[in-house]
Amino acid sequence: MATVATTHFADRLAEAVERKRSQLVVGLDPRPDLLPVELRGEAQQGREHAARACARFCRGLVDAVAPYVVAVKPQVAFFEALGSDGIATLEEICSYSRSAGLQVIADGKRGDIASTARAYAAAFLEGEPPLADALTVNPYLGRDSLEPYFAACRRSGAGIFCVVKTSNPGGADVQDLVLSDGRPVWQQVAELVADCGEELLGERGLSSVGAVIGATYPRAVGEARRLLPRSILLLPGVGAQGATAADVARAFTSGPASALVSVSRDVIYAFRVSGLDWRSAAAAEASHYAREVWAVSGW
Amino acid sequence: MATVATTHFADRLAEAVERKRSQLVVGLDPRPDLLPVELRGEAQQGREHAARACARFCRGLVDAVAPYVVAVKPQVAFFEALGSDGIATLEEICSYSRSAGLQVIADGKRGDIASTARAYAAAFLEGEPPLADALTVNPYLGRDSLEPYFAACRRSGAGIFCVVKTSNPGGADVQDLVLSDGRPVWQQVAELVADCGEELLGERGLSSVGAVIGATYPRAVGEARRLLPRSILLLPGVGAQGATAADVARAFTSGPASALVSVSRDVIYAFRVSGLDWRSAAAAEASHYAREVWAVSGW
Repeated sequence: MATVATTHFADRLAEAVERKRSQLVVGLDPRPDLLPVELRGEAQQGREHAARACARFCRGLVDAVAPYVVAVKPQVAFFEALGSDGIATLEEICSYSRSAGLQVIADGKRGDIASTARAYAAAFLEGEPPLADALTVNPYLGRDSLEPYFAACRRSGAGIFCVVKTSNPGGADVQDLVLSDGRPVWQQVAELVADCGEELLGERGLSSVGAVIGATYPRAVGEARRLLPRSILLLPGVGAQGATAADVARAFTSGPASALVSVSRDVIYAFRVSGLDWRSAAAAEASHYAREVWAVSGW
Repeated sequence: MATVATTHFADRLAEAVERKRSQLVVGLDPRPDLLPVELRGEAQQGREHAARACARFCRGLVDAVAPYVVAVKPQVAFFEALGSDGIATLEEICSYSRSAGLQVIADGKRGDIASTARAYAAAFLEGEPPLADALTVNPYLGRDSLEPYFAACRRSGAGIFCVVKTSNPGGADVQDLVLSDGRPVWQQVAELVADCGEELLGERGLSSVGAVIGATYPRAVGEARRLLPRSILLLPGVGAQGATAADVARAFTSGPASALVSVSRDVIYAFRVSGLDWRSAAAAEASHYAREVWAVSGW
């Protein structure tokens, strides 16, 4: 299959999904205290060394899972916890992942007023080259706070995933509040996201404005699919948080690339359970999840 | 007046407010393209130089405004836009500001599930020494996503400011949605924040769990004061965003330190309007805002 040269995030992603027959994203959440034994010694020698150990860990993971995934999702918090050394590692890992042919979804859940959001868009989506292909963002500050990211999508072919319904129980405190029309807050947010995404469709009909929907709420996944027919749904919560591949089947009715399943701990720390070498353990789990998700997606 | 040694954020802040007769916070939003002429040349020579120029700018601002403010509020986005060099600058500026006797409120508006929030709390509030005294956070993921920050407040005397009602027009898209009981979403969030803060009161009766309330909505400021009697209200929006000191008067009824007014652009870029030296211009504006706010606070 020919690789389509395109600058639209959703088109790049769709091409990768079809080529690899995978809708899997692996989350990179490097924690110095959980690293494999061979890296843990270095990780205990201060922040700079810890950042270097995390970089080796992430590079090894990228090599191991690259055949089975379409994207990696570095969780920015774990890099920030190592200060400027951690951010240097994040930059290295993003670049390494892109060289390995993977899309990079920076999981930062940023959200601020427009003048500040422009700086976040610059930080994550508009460098030369950009740090990431896409960024997760938070909708609490409303549409004008998201506009700078849409501008980045238009200008540089970036994507965003707006948090809509999260995988944690506490998400209900705000997202499930019942509005005067009987619907929960998150469904109104979903409509806002759908509306914003209409102007950013790629050649295959998918928008570069996606949505984060917790796989831990299968009924919400189906409802989100209905409310967001053009959005790529990014589904965390499979694995350590308790959801299964079957819980996300309904997300794929808008096409094979219309949803991505994100697994973090169950893949990157698989060695802690299996006893295998950490790279082999991650590869095995990624391969397993990729096949399982592809099967339930029905494509 | 004797300086009270304490590890509780609200007590440290209250002591500073009374000693300085100021409730002013200056936001540090360094933008390379807006720097004073003497720094702009360096700022145009690549990211590393730009970060260094921003560091000089911020150090100069801290020196200039320190007599008139109780805290600085570095906006993390503007540092992130300069990558790892920018984060190194953020670290330097936070440390410099604390050495100048100022509280540091990192404006990151972070928000993620608990396992990730723990990493953000470590990044901002729990180093040795911590990067900042307090962090702004986002409530969309609910109470369990905020718990790790409360733990940091208990353990290390940190503070947080939870975004409740923001200063931008688009904030209404989510925050003003009307719930089935007739109230807007933000008021329910305010109650959540108030409830969480009850367990984290300092000796003066103020909680280390504060709230961000846009000064651009004076009626909301009064209502927030009623819903959050123990919380320090952090009020952005005065100056460039259009609110005046008079708009925030009602925020101070829980004590002189029960609210902080945050001004960014109007102070740090004052030289662009006044023609004064940039340090003198910032000092003059900070002094002016501090007196004006103190007067309307009624203390």
